[in-house]
Amino acid sequence: MKALVYQGPGKKALEDRPTPRVGQPTDAIVKITKTTICGTDLHILKGDVATCMPGRILGHEGVGIITEIGNAVTGFGIGDHVLVSCISSCGKCDYCRRGMYSHCTTGGWILGNVIDGTQAEYVRIPHADTSLYKIPAGEDEEALVMLSDILPTGFECGVLNGKIQPGCTVAIVGAGPIGLAALLTAQFYAPAEIIMIDLDDNRLATAKRFGATATVNSGNGQAAAAILKMTGGRGADTVIEAVGIPATFELCEQIVAPGGTIANIGVHGTQVALHLERLWDRNITITTRLVDTASTPMLLKTVQSGKIVPGLLITHRFKLDAILEAYETFAHAADTRALKVIIEA
Amino acid sequence: MKALVYQGPGKKALEDRPTPRVGQPTDAIVKITKTTICGTDLHILKGDVATCMPGRILGHEGVGIITEIGNAVTGFGIGDHVLVSCISSCGKCDYCRRGMYSHCTTGGWILGNVIDGTQAEYVRIPHADTSLYKIPAGEDEEALVMLSDILPTGFECGVLNGKIQPGCTVAIVGAGPIGLAALLTAQFYAPAEIIMIDLDDNRLATAKRFGATATVNSGNGQAAAAILKMTGGRGADTVIEAVGIPATFELCEQIVAPGGTIANIGVHGTQVALHLERLWDRNITITTRLVDTASTPMLLKTVQSGKIVPGLLITHRFKLDAILEAYETFAHAADTRALKVIIEA
Amino acid sequence: MKALVYQGPGKKALEDRPTPRVGQPTDAIVKITKTTICGTDLHILKGDVATCMPGRILGHEGVGIITEIGNAVTGFGIGDHVLVSCISSCGKCDYCRRGMYSHCTTGGWILGNVIDGTQAEYVRIPHADTSLYKIPAGEDEEALVMLSDILPTGFECGVLNGKIQPGCTVAIVGAGPIGLAALLTAQFYAPAEIIMIDLDDNRLATAKRFGATATVNSGNGQAAAAILKMTGGRGADTVIEAVGIPATFELCEQIVAPGGTIANIGVHGTQVALHLERLWDRNITITTRLVDTASTPMLLKTVQSGKIVPGLLITHRFKLDAILEAYETFAHAADTRALKVIIEA
Amino acid sequence: MKALVYQGPGKKALEDRPTPRVGQPTDAIVKITKTTICGTDLHILKGDVATCMPGRILGHEGVGIITEIGNAVTGFGIGDHVLVSCISSCGKCDYCRRGMYSHCTTGGWILGNVIDGTQAEYVRIPHADTSLYKIPAGEDEEALVMLSDILPTGFECGVLNGKIQPGCTVAIVGAGPIGLAALLTAQFYAPAEIIMIDLDDNRLATAKRFGATATVNSGNGQAAAAILKMTGGRGADTVIEAVGIPATFELCEQIVAPGGTIANIGVHGTQVALHLERLWDRNITITTRLVDTASTPMLLKTVQSGKIVPGLLITHRFKLDAILEAYETFAHAADTRALKVIIEA
Repeated sequence: MKALVYQGPGKKALEDRPTPRVGQPTDAIVKITKTTICGTDLHILKGDVATCMPGRILGHEGVGIITEIGNAVTGFGIGDHVLVSCISSCGKCDYCRRGMYSHCTTGGWILGNVIDGTQAEYVRIPHADTSLYKIPAGEDEEALVMLSDILPTGFECGVLNGKIQPGCTVAIVGAGPIGLAALLTAQFYAPAEIIMIDLDDNRLATAKRFGATATVNSGNGQAAAAILKMTGGRGADTVIEAVGIPATFELCEQIVAPGGTIANIGVHGTQVALHLERLWDRNITITTRLVDTASTPMLLKTVQSGKIVPGLLITHRFKLDAILEAYETFAHAADTRALKVIIEA
Repeated sequence: MKALVYQGPGKKALEDRPTPRVGQPTDAIVKITKTTICGTDLHILKGDVATCMPGRILGHEGVGIITEIGNAVTGFGIGDHVLVSCISSCGKCDYCRRGMYSHCTTGGWILGNVIDGTQAEYVRIPHADTSLYKIPAGEDEEALVMLSDILPTGFECGVLNGKIQPGCTVAIVGAGPIGLAALLTAQFYAPAEIIMIDLDDNRLATAKRFGATATVNSGNGQAAAAILKMTGGRGADTVIEAVGIPATFELCEQIVAPGGTIANIGVHGTQVALHLERLWDRNITITTRLVDTASTPMLLKTVQSGKIVPGLLITHRFKLDAILEAYETFAHAADTRALKVIIEA
Repeated sequence: MKALVYQGPGKKALEDRPTPRVGQPTDAIVKITKTTICGTDLHILKGDVATCMPGRILGHEGVGIITEIGNAVTGFGIGDHVLVSCISSCGKCDYCRRGMYSHCTTGGWILGNVIDGTQAEYVRIPHADTSLYKIPAGEDEEALVMLSDILPTGFECGVLNGKIQPGCTVAIVGAGPIGLAALLTAQFYAPAEIIMIDLDDNRLATAKRFGATATVNSGNGQAAAAILKMTGGRGADTVIEAVGIPATFELCEQIVAPGGTIANIGVHGTQVALHLERLWDRNITITTRLVDTASTPMLLKTVQSGKIVPGLLITHRFKLDAILEAYETFAHAADTRALKVIIEA
Repeated sequence: MKALVYQGPGKKALEDRPTPRVGQPTDAIVKITKTTICGTDLHILKGDVATCMPGRILGHEGVGIITEIGNAVTGFGIGDHVLVSCISSCGKCDYCRRGMYSHCTTGGWILGNVIDGTQAEYVRIPHADTSLYKIPAGEDEEALVMLSDILPTGFECGVLNGKIQPGCTVAIVGAGPIGLAALLTAQFYAPAEIIMIDLDDNRLATAKRFGATATVNSGNGQAAAAILKMTGGRGADTVIEAVGIPATFELCEQIVAPGGTIANIGVHGTQVALHLERLWDRNITITTRLVDTASTPMLLKTVQSGKIVPGLLITHRFKLDAILEAYETFAHAADTRALKVIIEA
């Protein structure tokens, strides 16, 4: 089968690889129909993800059809249309029993990282019963690719951790796909204001279309002052960090209201300065989280009932044969205005 | 009346000052019977608290008897024995309505800071109805001085924010009075393990007596390794920072378990390094808080029912005339083994 | 001044009464500009509310302008446009400190019940600082009358107590003004389905317009079966009782899903049968609540930001002189299709 | 093997039955070392549990040693000492993923009910990975039998659902084994008062020994008045029903404080009168729950750390050969003063 393979820092290729087979009784094999590329895949390609070794098939998102199952899989059958979760979960370990699937002792984020992933014609899914979700007939399967990672990530790490409530003020730093996923799912809770901060005016315009009530271009270094002004000097109740660098995290520290929360989504490669000399008495909360995808069944219901339209995040479509081009498009989002690119396998 | 007055960095004196009178209709005048000294008073004396100007009577803790009330005070009468909260709360502003009294727009921590405090024969208490608590007849009033600040601080900023639960593992960094207050109130929730970390073996011995299940002297720089070993490599579910310097906060970052919480109590004077490059995917929570004293009525019940014995924290007693000596004793705790010193006015 | 006065069971009249004056230092006098009639007023007129004695001016909702204030009122001034809360709250007692204003020891629901109310030209508001809300300039004041009682009641007793979450299924029994208020505020949380149950097809049609995803006319006695069918046999996660009679409460018991909640809003005059022989192992929660109006500031923000349009609930308008006609219109809602009637004072 | 078999209403016998074998790949066979009898077993024998058919081996509690495992069991091996949960949980279905194991679509309370149970030499445990708990070496295994059902039931249905908090007042109606289990685990949260109500002075004396701060014999019909007097007329914040008849549930309704919770544990066979005409405006919560045993890992930690001593509940011991005598002893608890009886298999 064809598969996009990481070949070491800076290198990737579309290779021919053997089709995977069921190994454990809890495995399933999924024929991928649609997959996508994540910012994390770009991190891997930069050599930033130590656990991902050369030779790995990338990709941790996708929808497809089950072609083979192990004999202990009870929830799925061959031919079922399924959503692949970016997080594999055994459902048995202490972390899984607490809903913290991201820290599953034999799962977590392993797809396209420590085991082969979804940017291929087929993928082996371990712990299938608790790592796949059945797609109801008639759903827009392409749109559901957004539920593999990006929507639960924005929702769990940003919106839920950020404790967004009706009437509150939200600031989201970073209007890339993850920030926009947070923006879309934040609206489940009817906040009064959602201020979006980014350097790219195109992305800010998209944010406005997706429901932001105000936008701030932080290019001039005055973002904190602007947001404090917008909020009567108080700051935002919930601040979501969706970039992953020290400057944006420190901006969050400047604009969080007393009693508020900074919910970090960004993948950070270096330490940040936490200004406890200003924050120790501000009654704030800071959270970090690798998505657990525990909210996937709920998100599926919000999609089915039309509360959210995940397809909004899709800007480009490619065949698997053209996946290198898809990577180019996604990697140069400032020029291509790409959000999520769909790859049809 | 006699009062301990801050005279600028490094200077304080017992002065003669006019007895305060009711100003606002919501004021009460309290004749102080017992007060104490807080670590924050030492911070003020070092010149670290910019809001506190020379000439200020220090002190934000104490018990006493009401001698005068404004005409809008409805909950108290002259002669009532009362506990003074370190936090003044109007009960009306947005923050007060949300239980965040520490950020009351006309209150908060003002006593012994921006208005005259309790290390005196009398003190004026603004917002008396919502800043004083009636002491039931027969209570050990001296012990209740611990409820002005130290016990609600340990409980709210450490225990509540730290989400301590039955069966969990707690680590408390700092075995000074505040850390010990957290230790005492942590036991309300039956954690399985409470590990206490400090540099002073005397304080660690006290911690053992107060209920710590294990202690670690961090003097050798191996504290993190020791605690990880004790917890099977996982770390502590709740980590309470009760010191207020970068080294101890970073220790907390090293020993918090996935899914755990770092609850900061320490008053920090400088930024700390937040290692998001290791923590971004650990699903942790960090909290800061200036005590709200919203838990005071509840703590009073736990004292009355014998669930906690606050008097354990009292090591020394002085008359108001000897308050300078009391300061010496408290400031040299490593030698004097002082925890809280009572000053009888 | 003119005022609508309760004269004993079945009797009311528009009388001339002395204009109220400030009594306590915490009082304010409000010149009512708009008020309305509540279902509870009809209960009083039936003689069902024992605390309300003949001679009482009715009404506990309204907006107006402050004309006089006591000297301990700090948050308001003469000329301020204010929203009157149906619940008076001292802000000081144990219940108020816990946000349970409905049980304030010197307040709660007293307006138009044990003290004179708002269906008059002027009203005296005790505990003014914590029982009035400032109306920002430019707001639609008429629409804000819905925030005195009906919207916080639907929201707090129904939506918050019912723990509505994104993606969940909600059933609301009763499509009168309170049930519709629950319907409107339920949408703050993006439930997947909101099923509305009533006997009146007109009200069900209104419910559809207000956002219900399905409606059931319970007139044929088959409502439970219909709702179980709609929910795949599982029932609704949140069931809101907005009628107040045994039959509707028992319907709620039949349609609540395992793990779900029955949130009672209805004012009940008699006991109901709780079928614990079927429910003891269903892991359900039942809640009751007299509105606390603790959510009023938040609701005000959702109105200001356009998340909810309370004016939708207003169907008729009368002058105070015509208040008897307004009562007729409101009391015969099945014919008049009245929801809330505005009375202009 | 020997097994205690239900033979229809009023009839049971110690029979010879084939030793069970692994059926599904997720099964384990456990050689029972200790089991016990539950009040529910007596209900079955009365014919009150329609799902339990004649021929069923009873029992849903116990500890033992694994003798055989299916090939999909990954968490246990032959020879492991294990605690059997009374609730079987697949870990995969929607209810299990929400921690509501009691409603597992292929599990729940099935042991000794719809499949053969633990009052035998061997038992087959389905969903072994998520229905057994490893017993650490050196634990008192007999005491852990209390963790199969009674302690998680008291804790989850009574204490957790009852939202017991430090300083609060608790009333527990029923001082049988389940009520006492609630009493023991309530103390994890340091309530100020725990009032125990029963008809049997022996049980009340036991309750005092186990930590009750007050007891009330309800035989004289004055229990409600007595408890209201003890609580200053306010009632108890948490009321736990641990009997299961209308009279005791209605007592709970009378003694719950405004804002409080009635947490039902009792197994009810008939409807009860819910006095909404008095409770609709009291802001109370009523909960029901079949134990999920989601708290078992946590309870195991509290046992290991000595926060609770479950062996206190054991009053009698029998060999499996004498299980009919054990049933007699347990069924006549008023005379024998039996709480839990251990049966050694």
